[in-house]
Amino acid sequence: MRDTYHDQLDAIVQDLFQMSQLVARGVTQATAALTRADLALAEQVIEGDDAINALYRGVETQAFDLLARQQPVAGDLRVLVTSLRIVVDLERAGDYVVHLAKIARRRHPASAVPDALRGTVLEMGQTAQQILDKTGTVIATRDLELAAELEVDDDAMDALQKRLFTLVLQDGGQDIEAAIDATLAGRYYERLADHAVAVGHRVTYMVTGEHAEV
Amino acid sequence: MRDTYHDQLDAIVQDLFQMSQLVARGVTQATAALTRADLALAEQVIEGDDAINALYRGVETQAFDLLARQQPVAGDLRVLVTSLRIVVDLERAGDYVVHLAKIARRRHPASAVPDALRGTVLEMGQTAQQILDKTGTVIATRDLELAAELEVDDDAMDALQKRLFTLVLQDGGQDIEAAIDATLAGRYYERLADHAVAVGHRVTYMVTGEHAEV
Repeated sequence: MRDTYHDQLDAIVQDLFQMSQLVARGVTQATAALTRADLALAEQVIEGDDAINALYRGVETQAFDLLARQQPVAGDLRVLVTSLRIVVDLERAGDYVVHLAKIARRRHPASAVPDALRGTVLEMGQTAQQILDKTGTVIATRDLELAAELEVDDDAMDALQKRLFTLVLQDGGQDIEAAIDATLAGRYYERLADHAVAVGHRVTYMVTGEHAEV
Repeated sequence: MRDTYHDQLDAIVQDLFQMSQLVARGVTQATAALTRADLALAEQVIEGDDAINALYRGVETQAFDLLARQQPVAGDLRVLVTSLRIVVDLERAGDYVVHLAKIARRRHPASAVPDALRGTVLEMGQTAQQILDKTGTVIATRDLELAAELEVDDDAMDALQKRLFTLVLQDGGQDIEAAIDATLAGRYYERLADHAVAVGHRVTYMVTGEHAEV
């Protein structure tokens, strides 16, 4: 039988995994809300952030309690300290999902995404969802090869953001509001991916004790 | 005489204070680079991020060493765990300063800031610098009233961002590239202020053991 202490450590990792899944689902829904001008879906995504924030607070409390009561060393200490960092990245990723949904809500019943940008935004949403699914797997399995892949996935997201900005510029300034929204949305997707990469770095540190470059 | 352990704790807090000062100076310089199209200053700001990143790594290493070797409890444990969170906020704030400087560099020799937006951008820069100076004082003094003020300062920054976006919209779409740059710059200033507020929350937690709402 496992001891309670290690069960609690596992519970923290499980919560982090669940957060990544909620964010992954959220970004898919927020992208649909954005590209289809779906107000009800946007509201649902915005309300869904409460569950992510509740997990955030739970992980923080549990990790801190274990640090204080068990005084862990070496590997267990790294798991706890790293969890306290990962949970911030995932909570923040959840906030970006909410930001995306809020763009959809603000522009409803109009669509925040002009036709010329829709395909690229859909690709960004799909890429973000895949990255966050992979992040969840990295958290659950501590697979460092998969963690390293997140860097490559992030490059793909950066390229999509560049393409989006190029399309916004080509669109020729008929609609500044759409240009602002697309710029912000592009930035939110890119930041989501950045936080996934950060989680990958932190899991790598958790396993190896070696810091990735900032 | 102080013991070495508490000297090391103090050294960490001192490094966090220094980071906040470097970011405060950086945002003033980045704002000048943006509004005056000053390439040399932009380059200087971008290079200056190395010092912030070096402090980041130093704090992380020191805090982790103390956690592992001293197994601190209660207040000292909170200081260390909180320092590991604050250092991430400050490193990230430094990245936003670099992002601002990179906008100036990308648009040089043109100015990234149209005349109609210059005053608002200068105000955002000044507000960010004041917020970061205050953040440094909060770190050094643990003054919770001052920490609470950061929320109000952040509201002022949010209002400036709204004004900036309104001006971009009024500008009527002659220059989409300037609209994108102004949107991103506004977002970077706002995020800088958000990280300062987060530091205020973390210092409050450090002192009281009570979490602020996410």
